[in-house]
Amino acid sequence: MNLGLIGLGKMGNNMRERLREAKIDVVGFDSNPAVSDVPDLAALAAALPAPRIVWVMVPSGKITDSVISDLAAVLEDGDLIIDGGNSRFTDDFRHAEELAPKGISFVDAGVSGGIWGLKNGYGLMVGGKQEDVERAMPIFDALRPEGPRAEGFVHVGEVGAGHYAKMVHNGIEYALMQAYAEGYELLDTKKDIIKDVTGTFKAWQRGTVVRSWLLELLVLALEEDPEFVDIEGYVDDSGEGRWTIEEAIANAVPVPTISASIFARFVSRQEDSPAMKAVAALRNQFGGHAVKKAD
Amino acid sequence: MNLGLIGLGKMGNNMRERLREAKIDVVGFDSNPAVSDVPDLAALAAALPAPRIVWVMVPSGKITDSVISDLAAVLEDGDLIIDGGNSRFTDDFRHAEELAPKGISFVDAGVSGGIWGLKNGYGLMVGGKQEDVERAMPIFDALRPEGPRAEGFVHVGEVGAGHYAKMVHNGIEYALMQAYAEGYELLDTKKDIIKDVTGTFKAWQRGTVVRSWLLELLVLALEEDPEFVDIEGYVDDSGEGRWTIEEAIANAVPVPTISASIFARFVSRQEDSPAMKAVAALRNQFGGHAVKKAD
Amino acid sequence: MNLGLIGLGKMGNNMRERLREAKIDVVGFDSNPAVSDVPDLAALAAALPAPRIVWVMVPSGKITDSVISDLAAVLEDGDLIIDGGNSRFTDDFRHAEELAPKGISFVDAGVSGGIWGLKNGYGLMVGGKQEDVERAMPIFDALRPEGPRAEGFVHVGEVGAGHYAKMVHNGIEYALMQAYAEGYELLDTKKDIIKDVTGTFKAWQRGTVVRSWLLELLVLALEEDPEFVDIEGYVDDSGEGRWTIEEAIANAVPVPTISASIFARFVSRQEDSPAMKAVAALRNQFGGHAVKKAD
Amino acid sequence: MNLGLIGLGKMGNNMRERLREAKIDVVGFDSNPAVSDVPDLAALAAALPAPRIVWVMVPSGKITDSVISDLAAVLEDGDLIIDGGNSRFTDDFRHAEELAPKGISFVDAGVSGGIWGLKNGYGLMVGGKQEDVERAMPIFDALRPEGPRAEGFVHVGEVGAGHYAKMVHNGIEYALMQAYAEGYELLDTKKDIIKDVTGTFKAWQRGTVVRSWLLELLVLALEEDPEFVDIEGYVDDSGEGRWTIEEAIANAVPVPTISASIFARFVSRQEDSPAMKAVAALRNQFGGHAVKKAD
Repeated sequence: MNLGLIGLGKMGNNMRERLREAKIDVVGFDSNPAVSDVPDLAALAAALPAPRIVWVMVPSGKITDSVISDLAAVLEDGDLIIDGGNSRFTDDFRHAEELAPKGISFVDAGVSGGIWGLKNGYGLMVGGKQEDVERAMPIFDALRPEGPRAEGFVHVGEVGAGHYAKMVHNGIEYALMQAYAEGYELLDTKKDIIKDVTGTFKAWQRGTVVRSWLLELLVLALEEDPEFVDIEGYVDDSGEGRWTIEEAIANAVPVPTISASIFARFVSRQEDSPAMKAVAALRNQFGGHAVKKAD
Repeated sequence: MNLGLIGLGKMGNNMRERLREAKIDVVGFDSNPAVSDVPDLAALAAALPAPRIVWVMVPSGKITDSVISDLAAVLEDGDLIIDGGNSRFTDDFRHAEELAPKGISFVDAGVSGGIWGLKNGYGLMVGGKQEDVERAMPIFDALRPEGPRAEGFVHVGEVGAGHYAKMVHNGIEYALMQAYAEGYELLDTKKDIIKDVTGTFKAWQRGTVVRSWLLELLVLALEEDPEFVDIEGYVDDSGEGRWTIEEAIANAVPVPTISASIFARFVSRQEDSPAMKAVAALRNQFGGHAVKKAD
Repeated sequence: MNLGLIGLGKMGNNMRERLREAKIDVVGFDSNPAVSDVPDLAALAAALPAPRIVWVMVPSGKITDSVISDLAAVLEDGDLIIDGGNSRFTDDFRHAEELAPKGISFVDAGVSGGIWGLKNGYGLMVGGKQEDVERAMPIFDALRPEGPRAEGFVHVGEVGAGHYAKMVHNGIEYALMQAYAEGYELLDTKKDIIKDVTGTFKAWQRGTVVRSWLLELLVLALEEDPEFVDIEGYVDDSGEGRWTIEEAIANAVPVPTISASIFARFVSRQEDSPAMKAVAALRNQFGGHAVKKAD
Repeated sequence: MNLGLIGLGKMGNNMRERLREAKIDVVGFDSNPAVSDVPDLAALAAALPAPRIVWVMVPSGKITDSVISDLAAVLEDGDLIIDGGNSRFTDDFRHAEELAPKGISFVDAGVSGGIWGLKNGYGLMVGGKQEDVERAMPIFDALRPEGPRAEGFVHVGEVGAGHYAKMVHNGIEYALMQAYAEGYELLDTKKDIIKDVTGTFKAWQRGTVVRSWLLELLVLALEEDPEFVDIEGYVDDSGEGRWTIEEAIANAVPVPTISASIFARFVSRQEDSPAMKAVAALRNQFGGHAVKKAD
């Protein structure tokens, strides 16, 4: 099995390694020549036997758009492009439409697993036509975790469905993280009786209702730095979380915990909150409540 | 009409002034002799013709408890105590029970209006027996705003109902303030097209759906300091907001906006968020996402 | 002063009446000939002296798009179109760009006031160039409420700023309504001590921190139907609320109360909640908790 | 090792079985004679060699209170009571104080695992004195899951700490369940592209960030009833969730996802929402928006 792989950053590079361990013959290209197997996309196309499969693993948005356009110019009728990046599912519709007239197929693949994927395998959610998905199955089997295929891979539905499912996955992930974090703060705040916060999370790893991989990671983090003295409560967010809210709004789905999670991240990045300045100013107006003067 | 008034702080003092303007003969007592009309509670009782009415306007909790106990010792059968402080409504049940064997009646009064009450009058919500409420009506009429009695005074129900209504009033107040504050931040953040934030709030004062007294106060605050440069986004909260959540929980009433308002205040007072440290630590574990190192 | 007015539905018709009372010479057009003053847009253009001002008051989205395109065909260099509908502010950018090459100016106007606007006047928030706004000032003055101009009208900023401000206004409005509604439920649920819910809201109208126009409307509603026996808890939402969340997400502004308000509306329209079915199914799996079987 | 066990309901009975499999000599008592090993508490005390350990596994609140009082009458200096029920941690303080003068020790144990505990073992969080916890360690080792003790058992801290940790565990559990449930609804609503919701959750079981035991249970539930046609979206809540919010409020800890989860459960149980009736009534007042008439 041959595969072209575009994008050899942190994720792409690990995926190339895992694919090669599984005897997939990978030709990698990256804008950084130091890690590329070929000098350009034309060379990549030339190095692959037709019909080709090319996996795109670059930042979503304009970069993915341009890589797919560039690929369209060097691929041919019967080839297949898989977008494994974090594209918005609505971008998939555009990409599939753009490629269809040239006879190039398109599959979108949501990929979960982060830096642990090289070792554990990547959870995969894909969208596209049945025949395209089947054709790429050896690739998916190489990337996904050990064990039954159905527990680490799913053909979710039409084009876009893979990235939609990955978007929802990330929305859930945000809320799960926030849930554990609120629990952490509740334990951490009760120092008069709670003497072992790390031990408590650690003890939840077996037998309890809240056991999960995120819980295990939280234990690892707490064992490194039990009071989080070296970490600032500043949290970025990525597109998927925001898109989840937008889709929820578009489809009238109430998502109170997912939205609370993303708002908590927004607040975490503010030096001072304009909204809370307004509340402080209001309290001062009606109640003569003291305000803290900014320095 | 005679009234004993215990507690001559910011609120109590203003109330004494408003009552006297309405020709109520007020005898005031405070732990601060400089503002007291009498040296002690016994002197206060002696200065009032029986049956007496005594209005208690001191901090809720232990201080109110002890003032009511002390009053019980100097008052007599037929007298009436009105608790106008911010007591939890469940305290009212205790106080009424404590006083009943001595023949002393009890009315609870929720009082809204803050520092503007002296001029505008105080919104009053009272709980207690019909005859007790009627007996104190001249007091209520003196304190409440001009205009129809029903628009500034209500006999809400049984003992405790006045403070319960005031608690709900404050819960609503929290959420109203947060709503305007979120709107402020949405306007403030859009500097590319929004050129007059203060003017926008000012223009909402007539004709719009969101016009309110709080809006007018926000305009006053913005006119003083349009960018809130002198105000820190640090907001205290008082008992009523917390009790509102507790009552909501106890009665299975969903209160998403009121709880969001109080949580926003909690966050506003944190130097750094333990919960968001936990989220940052988690992201770092699974994704290798950079964390901000605390200094 | 002459004005063309497109759209004579509930809002447009009331506005025509208010404008005519103010001696503005209005030529109205609607797709319904029964209420139109002219048979078509060409006739409307012909009936107005140049340079013309035409106010568009039709549903946002495709209808506004097509009305503006059609108007562009019959208007000429120097004319001014004001979009007073509930357009998304991003549509304003498109409309201004579409009209600019023809020399037609564009102003967006957010209009608040609902069915009460005819009598009370409409709160107005406008975006556009200074000279365009000034030119239309007699129209704005006729529509806005009595009193100082700055309390019922604002030139918010660039094109789009008027509708952005109206969008924020509506987002705030959602949260304000939800706040009062949560307070209503807290009072309504406590029937053992609360004997007069309507009276409590009524008494908040003067002197209290929560007094507002919405509170007055809630009192009117409660006086008509104190237990809301004739009303189902089913609440629609309009574009502005949703756009507010989308803008909050796009600009990383936390909006917990506004989002809670819109989610509460989503839930209110569900026969049964798919999410809560999932929670019920989960509880049943781990705890053997009984589930309610759907009929 | 001998143990007295009070309460042989669903949980207690399973625990007796698991303890006996581990060669703990259990004497069980329940108010139901059919499942009891002894006729009364006196007989239970007589059947155990001193110093005794008695595990209480009955409903929290008044029943636990009375069982502990009754036990105090039949136990003696040097005995140990473990409360393994779902008591509020503040009850533990009372119980320890009540028993101390009699020389009876007290340990509180939060127990997680539900109906799966018999097979998988129970996650245990305990609070109390070091010597008391050590003495009961064979019991804890018999009940907890296989594997390292620290991954299924923790001595959290002082008396009360075990139930506090269990309370937080359940608060987290509520939010985790809600997170998956929101994700379910987002997938379920997008039927145009999502063709395999069950398969998507199933595929998240390996390699993804959201894998957990709850996820596995959700897959089991979906495999039984993929559209949840037989389940109503009606969800009860238990004391721990409510206490979590109360503690959050008492300690000024923001818990937006945990509170959102509990509010979603409250809403799920309402035939119609009083709050949303109020919002519908308000919209009708200001906008003339149609309301749905209740039948």
